[in-house]
Amino acid sequence: MARAVNAGHCEGLRLDPAVREDARRRLLSLRGHVDGILRMLDNEQVYCVDVLKQVKAVNGALNRVGELVLRSHLQEHVSTAAQRGDTHHLVDELMELLKYR
Amino acid sequence: MARAVNAGHCEGLRLDPAVREDARRRLLSLRGHVDGILRMLDNEQVYCVDVLKQVKAVNGALNRVGELVLRSHLQEHVSTAAQRGDTHHLVDELMELLKYR
Amino acid sequence: MARAVNAGHCEGLRLDPAVREDARRRLLSLRGHVDGILRMLDNEQVYCVDVLKQVKAVNGALNRVGELVLRSHLQEHVSTAAQRGDTHHLVDELMELLKYR
Amino acid sequence: MARAVNAGHCEGLRLDPAVREDARRRLLSLRGHVDGILRMLDNEQVYCVDVLKQVKAVNGALNRVGELVLRSHLQEHVSTAAQRGDTHHLVDELMELLKYR
Repeated sequence: MARAVNAGHCEGLRLDPAVREDARRRLLSLRGHVDGILRMLDNEQVYCVDVLKQVKAVNGALNRVGELVLRSHLQEHVSTAAQRGDTHHLVDELMELLKYR
Repeated sequence: MARAVNAGHCEGLRLDPAVREDARRRLLSLRGHVDGILRMLDNEQVYCVDVLKQVKAVNGALNRVGELVLRSHLQEHVSTAAQRGDTHHLVDELMELLKYR
Repeated sequence: MARAVNAGHCEGLRLDPAVREDARRRLLSLRGHVDGILRMLDNEQVYCVDVLKQVKAVNGALNRVGELVLRSHLQEHVSTAAQRGDTHHLVDELMELLKYR
Repeated sequence: MARAVNAGHCEGLRLDPAVREDARRRLLSLRGHVDGILRMLDNEQVYCVDVLKQVKAVNGALNRVGELVLRSHLQEHVSTAAQRGDTHHLVDELMELLKYR
């Protein structure tokens, strides 16, 4: 029943196409936001807290990308792990990722 | 002694130039990292957890930018707030930022 | 194949006994740690940062309890969700819990 | 101008009495909450996610204690650090505490 799984190369366990597209769209927007912070930093008068607020906003946007991909991963791959026999590998991988998020 | 402070427009409380340059350099590198995730997402076979790992790495890089700016802000502005008389404003601003980091 | 699941009352989905015992042991120790902070607060000279350090240590201990239970839940229940047919419920529940951890 | 500061023993930098009382009250309530989780764990049927929800609630309560003490520390001690000359020490201490909160 168990199936050999290469760490970081799980054939068949690919990211859902709709989620992939949503993640891409959000990361493009996030990259624009980072460009905005870079422009703020051109201003010699820039106030620390205004930079911190923008950094926090990008952090929030990045977390939403992570949640999107994590939800899809739980839904598509973790919930079916017992059937494939790679539960231990997937759970170890996840717990590592969830540390110090 | 107290000095009026406009929220979000604190004249004189500007980000230290060396920190500004360091933050800029880090954000440029981080933007490159986001581009790397976008390229990963072009691959139909991409594995969820590989995306999550990269998202987490960018998150870490972003947090280091935040720590850099926060440290400078504490050092330069918060530690001198009593002398200027804008302690309440700076502390409220900080506590708001530190929520749900 | 799908099975009705009452939110918050999942018969059969009980916490593994060994994990339950480990969590209990850790929470007893954590309660002792909280008592230690309460004794610190009896001291009029107590320094803020010493309290913050202890609060952070308890936070770490609490997170380890959470990780323990989460790992067991992923291993025992989420990985078998497709077989039982309650994937959506378990994933929604988990994503809600992982917000702002 | 600079004043010698022993790490972890800052005479004069004591926690504000009102904040100390508020923190104590909250920690007593939090200890009761931990007792509640311990009673949950006596139940063999306890569901993982119900434990995780309670752990998260205690975490939230603990964070509010931390925020309370941190706000007081910023207000009373960090904002006056330049006057006393212990800015570097206080900022280093704070940045260490804010890591991986």
